[in-house]
Amino acid sequence: MTKVYVLNGVNLGRLGTRQTLIYGATSYEDLAKRCVVEGERLGLDVECRQTDDETEMIHWLYEAADEAIPVVLNSAAWSHYSYALRDACAMLKAPLVEVHISNIHAREEFRHHSVISGVATGVIAGLGVDGYRLALSYLSRVITDTSAPAA
Amino acid sequence: MTKVYVLNGVNLGRLGTRQTLIYGATSYEDLAKRCVVEGERLGLDVECRQTDDETEMIHWLYEAADEAIPVVLNSAAWSHYSYALRDACAMLKAPLVEVHISNIHAREEFRHHSVISGVATGVIAGLGVDGYRLALSYLSRVITDTSAPAA
Amino acid sequence: MTKVYVLNGVNLGRLGTRQTLIYGATSYEDLAKRCVVEGERLGLDVECRQTDDETEMIHWLYEAADEAIPVVLNSAAWSHYSYALRDACAMLKAPLVEVHISNIHAREEFRHHSVISGVATGVIAGLGVDGYRLALSYLSRVITDTSAPAA
Amino acid sequence: MTKVYVLNGVNLGRLGTRQTLIYGATSYEDLAKRCVVEGERLGLDVECRQTDDETEMIHWLYEAADEAIPVVLNSAAWSHYSYALRDACAMLKAPLVEVHISNIHAREEFRHHSVISGVATGVIAGLGVDGYRLALSYLSRVITDTSAPAA
Amino acid sequence: MTKVYVLNGVNLGRLGTRQTLIYGATSYEDLAKRCVVEGERLGLDVECRQTDDETEMIHWLYEAADEAIPVVLNSAAWSHYSYALRDACAMLKAPLVEVHISNIHAREEFRHHSVISGVATGVIAGLGVDGYRLALSYLSRVITDTSAPAA
Amino acid sequence: MTKVYVLNGVNLGRLGTRQTLIYGATSYEDLAKRCVVEGERLGLDVECRQTDDETEMIHWLYEAADEAIPVVLNSAAWSHYSYALRDACAMLKAPLVEVHISNIHAREEFRHHSVISGVATGVIAGLGVDGYRLALSYLSRVITDTSAPAA
Amino acid sequence: MTKVYVLNGVNLGRLGTRQTLIYGATSYEDLAKRCVVEGERLGLDVECRQTDDETEMIHWLYEAADEAIPVVLNSAAWSHYSYALRDACAMLKAPLVEVHISNIHAREEFRHHSVISGVATGVIAGLGVDGYRLALSYLSRVITDTSAPAA
Amino acid sequence: MTKVYVLNGVNLGRLGTRQTLIYGATSYEDLAKRCVVEGERLGLDVECRQTDDETEMIHWLYEAADEAIPVVLNSAAWSHYSYALRDACAMLKAPLVEVHISNIHAREEFRHHSVISGVATGVIAGLGVDGYRLALSYLSRVITDTSAPAA
Amino acid sequence: MTKVYVLNGVNLGRLGTRQTLIYGATSYEDLAKRCVVEGERLGLDVECRQTDDETEMIHWLYEAADEAIPVVLNSAAWSHYSYALRDACAMLKAPLVEVHISNIHAREEFRHHSVISGVATGVIAGLGVDGYRLALSYLSRVITDTSAPAA
Amino acid sequence: MTKVYVLNGVNLGRLGTRQTLIYGATSYEDLAKRCVVEGERLGLDVECRQTDDETEMIHWLYEAADEAIPVVLNSAAWSHYSYALRDACAMLKAPLVEVHISNIHAREEFRHHSVISGVATGVIAGLGVDGYRLALSYLSRVITDTSAPAA
Amino acid sequence: MTKVYVLNGVNLGRLGTRQTLIYGATSYEDLAKRCVVEGERLGLDVECRQTDDETEMIHWLYEAADEAIPVVLNSAAWSHYSYALRDACAMLKAPLVEVHISNIHAREEFRHHSVISGVATGVIAGLGVDGYRLALSYLSRVITDTSAPAA
Amino acid sequence: MTKVYVLNGVNLGRLGTRQTLIYGATSYEDLAKRCVVEGERLGLDVECRQTDDETEMIHWLYEAADEAIPVVLNSAAWSHYSYALRDACAMLKAPLVEVHISNIHAREEFRHHSVISGVATGVIAGLGVDGYRLALSYLSRVITDTSAPAA
Repeated sequence: MTKVYVLNGVNLGRLGTRQTLIYGATSYEDLAKRCVVEGERLGLDVECRQTDDETEMIHWLYEAADEAIPVVLNSAAWSHYSYALRDACAMLKAPLVEVHISNIHAREEFRHHSVISGVATGVIAGLGVDGYRLALSYLSRVITDTSAPAA
Repeated sequence: MTKVYVLNGVNLGRLGTRQTLIYGATSYEDLAKRCVVEGERLGLDVECRQTDDETEMIHWLYEAADEAIPVVLNSAAWSHYSYALRDACAMLKAPLVEVHISNIHAREEFRHHSVISGVATGVIAGLGVDGYRLALSYLSRVITDTSAPAA
Repeated sequence: MTKVYVLNGVNLGRLGTRQTLIYGATSYEDLAKRCVVEGERLGLDVECRQTDDETEMIHWLYEAADEAIPVVLNSAAWSHYSYALRDACAMLKAPLVEVHISNIHAREEFRHHSVISGVATGVIAGLGVDGYRLALSYLSRVITDTSAPAA
Repeated sequence: MTKVYVLNGVNLGRLGTRQTLIYGATSYEDLAKRCVVEGERLGLDVECRQTDDETEMIHWLYEAADEAIPVVLNSAAWSHYSYALRDACAMLKAPLVEVHISNIHAREEFRHHSVISGVATGVIAGLGVDGYRLALSYLSRVITDTSAPAA
Repeated sequence: MTKVYVLNGVNLGRLGTRQTLIYGATSYEDLAKRCVVEGERLGLDVECRQTDDETEMIHWLYEAADEAIPVVLNSAAWSHYSYALRDACAMLKAPLVEVHISNIHAREEFRHHSVISGVATGVIAGLGVDGYRLALSYLSRVITDTSAPAA
Repeated sequence: MTKVYVLNGVNLGRLGTRQTLIYGATSYEDLAKRCVVEGERLGLDVECRQTDDETEMIHWLYEAADEAIPVVLNSAAWSHYSYALRDACAMLKAPLVEVHISNIHAREEFRHHSVISGVATGVIAGLGVDGYRLALSYLSRVITDTSAPAA
Repeated sequence: MTKVYVLNGVNLGRLGTRQTLIYGATSYEDLAKRCVVEGERLGLDVECRQTDDETEMIHWLYEAADEAIPVVLNSAAWSHYSYALRDACAMLKAPLVEVHISNIHAREEFRHHSVISGVATGVIAGLGVDGYRLALSYLSRVITDTSAPAA
Repeated sequence: MTKVYVLNGVNLGRLGTRQTLIYGATSYEDLAKRCVVEGERLGLDVECRQTDDETEMIHWLYEAADEAIPVVLNSAAWSHYSYALRDACAMLKAPLVEVHISNIHAREEFRHHSVISGVATGVIAGLGVDGYRLALSYLSRVITDTSAPAA
Repeated sequence: MTKVYVLNGVNLGRLGTRQTLIYGATSYEDLAKRCVVEGERLGLDVECRQTDDETEMIHWLYEAADEAIPVVLNSAAWSHYSYALRDACAMLKAPLVEVHISNIHAREEFRHHSVISGVATGVIAGLGVDGYRLALSYLSRVITDTSAPAA
Repeated sequence: MTKVYVLNGVNLGRLGTRQTLIYGATSYEDLAKRCVVEGERLGLDVECRQTDDETEMIHWLYEAADEAIPVVLNSAAWSHYSYALRDACAMLKAPLVEVHISNIHAREEFRHHSVISGVATGVIAGLGVDGYRLALSYLSRVITDTSAPAA
Repeated sequence: MTKVYVLNGVNLGRLGTRQTLIYGATSYEDLAKRCVVEGERLGLDVECRQTDDETEMIHWLYEAADEAIPVVLNSAAWSHYSYALRDACAMLKAPLVEVHISNIHAREEFRHHSVISGVATGVIAGLGVDGYRLALSYLSRVITDTSAPAA
Repeated sequence: MTKVYVLNGVNLGRLGTRQTLIYGATSYEDLAKRCVVEGERLGLDVECRQTDDETEMIHWLYEAADEAIPVVLNSAAWSHYSYALRDACAMLKAPLVEVHISNIHAREEFRHHSVISGVATGVIAGLGVDGYRLALSYLSRVITDTSAPAA
């Protein structure tokens, strides 16, 4: 089974307790489990991690870069200013799908722009935690259907 | 089966012939077929339409609004300035997923902002024509799994 | 009786069903009727039209320009970007009153500026559908009281 | 008869002598008289005041707020920067119609934006002194026709 | 007892009646009394004034400048544009504490910037009318504890 | 005694050695002691912490959120860009007072805006280390005087 | 003879009647005739079309793209916002010369920028209807003199 | 002798005591005297006034407008935002010379722009109180040498 | 034969050696010859000059102004900042055609705006060295066909 | 007699022939003569120079810097972009008065800002060629009246 | 031997594997060795460190500040937003040379500005890893040649 | 020995006399000598030139371009606006090192951006006249060590 990383950034460990009107009632543990189960269904070996430490996230991205592992990344609030994270993402060799649970384009002005998006393969925003499932589905399709271009 | 509209805007009828490096080699007809097939697989009655006429698109959105039909919308170049389209989208009662084939955040500055996103449920960009499949998958999930909130 | 055009742009056919908190409960048909009745009261031959097609609107403005017919125009969402409409409005020879049902200055930032206003005689915004009556009243006054300047 | 205030701000006492190409030849005294007469016709007890003193204007607005008196306000040059006036206007309980004699959207850039508009019920601009009559007509309609919403 | 001025600007006389959700239910009279009482507790001779007249406020600042009296200033809406007030504040010789009852940084964009702050000793915002007590407490500390620097 | 956190961010451990003209001569240890002593005087159980590690700060904010502990936060240089910190602050349930020792509005342009302020209860800036005392005093008042609204 | 399209956009059918000080007295019919005659002189089979309908214009551009026909385009007011038109122009395979009758750089600020120019071969502006003749002359030169690069 | 007004705005009564490094040591009384004496030398009947009340200043400008009296105006801090003053200045019929004692272009960014300058005949800045003498000298020249244009 | 100046600015003497992908392989000498030959064909006495010295260019423009000689000007990099050149161009009495070899609108942001265009009759950009021929053709037409307006 | 330089920049040699509505009918030669005569009257040895060559102007400023000669400078169009000139001006040791014949604040936006003003002693604009006389008068006063500060 | 710190920030441990077209093929280990060897040649005790952890970097800067050790800093992506790092750099007492391997001014817009540069002694960018050698050479010169000023 | 140009722009001939706090006490002659001596030490034939004439500088750059001579360029104040110079620099074939004596990033806003940097190999700023030595050292290394890439 192909390895896939699902990496969750700052404050996402608080899912289910934090602003549930915006982020939904699913807890982080539930989200992680769902991703693993969904991965299994898709034939992907999903490893789901969360950290509030930017450095740790960057090192996880190095691992993904070194092993050419596809990544689903919810870069959370870091999306809006962390060029350090952007530069680490730019090192990836396999596809990178940026996921946001809420529709960042319909919230505060500062959330409309993500410095990560420019180096991502694509972005899914506003579809709730279901966005993770879709990102995995995309990766599964790209990995298994090598005969057809993804775009 | 639940009705779903997949609405494609200006220049998308040229898919497969236009800037294939950016938009891929899939023709519009193939895309439309894929959406219908995928819909059947998901238990959705997908109706796929394309127009280069903004007025026609707006009237399709009225139909969707009147019948509370979920919409997958690729608003193409209109995304970047058509407040007329935005206002029509704002009338929708069922979920609206905005899809872009290319990663608009990694292209020209003027493509980074969509005036539609602020009134959409969510956005999928850069995942090629596979983005349509994911959008349908999301709608299917939201429609069938009414017990759990989407977000 | 002097002919007057009341021209309504994109999405205004949806009046009464669309965002009634913002636009009120009057249907487009009621609005049109009110304008005609009000016109009769004022001695004006009011012709009320609505279109979601920018080209059709532009051609109506040509008619008004050719016959020097005064115009009440609700350019709706087009107000915020359509320089094509602006250029057509600039051809008018009789007064042009721009009407907005809602107070565009108290809504989203993008609605604060109308590219039409710079070539209009004047603007009425935020007074609900009553704004049409006032616009007609103004035109009636200007047309009949030719001895005194309007301003 | 319902009391209505017509409040005129800075430099408007100079009407008829000042830039008549822009503001017309009607003197302030004539304007005030016209408003009273028009009010009588409409069943409104119009009180027309003018001041070049921002503080006095603010106190008049307090009176209107305390008595829930509808206001027609020509805030003149103050419109473009006086947040003090805006805050006073925000206290009003009855409708506030902002009137500008000239079409501020067709003049210098700094006149395109009014800090008052965001807290007004609506705005009438560019229709000359006739704008006052229309504003009164609107207030009369709103006050007397309480069964139907104004918008 | 050291003299201290508590100067309140435009519209603050309406405290307790105006937008109580934002400004609280304390009336201006209560606020003034509280400041005097608090002053007495702190050994300060507090004189609390309010005006809607910018010129009067400027003259009060001259008095404070001439007598090197510390000032607590709520410059209200003037904060956002009155360079006249700023220049008067710049003449002060004793500390100046700018106080805002509401958190101006969490309200409309135009309230985020105060032209007074650059010439104030410091700013207290968003702590309700309690901000006045804190400002007086600060002044009391600075005045009485002359051996240690305030910063 | 009510628990209160006084949380100090990056570089604040260097107080008393760093740019003493701007930040004063009080060392961080002195500051921490003063806060505890002041807390005791006010009947508050003050816990004073400092970290240069954003992740640690965020976790402290989680603790405060979980226990509904009021917070005095000097977010230092992070104030000007860390949306991660902002999002953590937004989770707090008890009041949050943002404190800056220097008057950030009178320094470099980039210090004029704090991304934290929009989610804080209020802000105290420029009153030196005395700002901490005032913030505690405010919290004490809010906590003990539950009958009256703070604002 | 090589086919060449001369495509004229919105409001250009009004040439000769509209703002003749800016656009000159030549009628659209005259212009079209001149282009055909000039084409004959140059050995080009000129087809001159005009439309106020953006969709129709886009479809004409598709025809030109499919047949690799060189295009002279006066995109008129659409130039300043229609990314839909830009995307259609980007599909062209033969040269595209953008023509403006008036000097758009010497008129209103919003006319200084054309979103078409970035995908055109070149631009001619301000030389009146003679600009069409020059554009045809350029195309004739490029088509016939295939041995030398145009630039 | 031709009448000339020398009008001084807000805070200028504090000359000689306020920021003497910037504004010099001359008191307002001395300045006024110098202007009168200089006027006598030039054959001008100089009337020198100062007010911190914007309304009073505006009324003085009305007097000047009514009598076509030339004006030397130091609009001080009002220069940077008071469109009310600008509109009053625009009514003047005789020349208006705007004077600033300090070089506003070499001070804070907000002082670089004066909203008065656009309606003044000319501006003198940074030449200290001597700027008044020069302005009077200019007016004297313009008034007496009617045969040659001033520019 | 009517005299026409073809004036080439800074770095254009390097044509044919400099960035040939952008500017083409034609040398400056060839360009100059072509212009003269083309002029002869058109009945124009073309004088082609090049300088890297702004002052020399300005003096050539004086000559053209004094003799009312039409000018074809390639102002090269000066276009983007030299208001000195603009002011000299504004003195011209005969038509001025600004020519750019490359399509400046499709290159770096700073090249999108020319400070010369606002005072030119018209602009030709992106049509390679053929742009000079077209400019001469335009001048020839304007000069010889005096009965019809150019626009 | 004290030496004073009156230095005139680009295009000013064309005075009297260039845009006389803006710059007046005085020729450069007349202006130069007037300055010398006025200098004699004031006891100043005025040397009046003009150049269209920026380098020459910079060298003249070096001379002035080396000899501590006061300068009256009309930097003309260079004012709006030449930091080279600004840096040369910054070397001056005696006062520098920047003069503009027209009121640059009432003309095109790009003329509102001068990069020279920030390093000048003061600025005189809009008073026609009389501005030179006033500048000399100021210098004369500063030089002869050494007992009193200029400001 | 004088101690010197060479501090490398986020992602620089990936040198030699990351975007080698931009950053070159030298590995971080090689770079570190080169710095030490170069230091020895120059008589400097170079200590070369790298971290992806902002907090660790800040603490290293404290060490340097406490011991007045000169620093060569490659702040990498942090340069573009980390005011925390800037504040730590501002504490340094010995010279600070900011080094960037690539020419940040020729890359993406967001890399053109470094918030560190304003508090650095100087900056070296775009000279590859050789930039480190030059920075050390500079420090060596400043340290050993105390008789001559560096600037 | 490899030829290297050290080219110094406007006002740099004044080194040692001009703003010595910013630019140091080294005279231009000393600087030139140091560069030659340093060149000899490095095996480079350094030719050091200075000019205040932009055209001359551009011609020197042509020489360097024609002979593929490496260049050290201090473009001084021209850096901030001269696109003419930029275009000339873009013709160079050997490396170009831009040198600034002062740290332009720590000075006035307008000095933060150099239009030259985008076409330079790299930039050294703020290291005083020692920056020239470092630039030469870099060139020497690049030229002699042809086996290893510079970056």
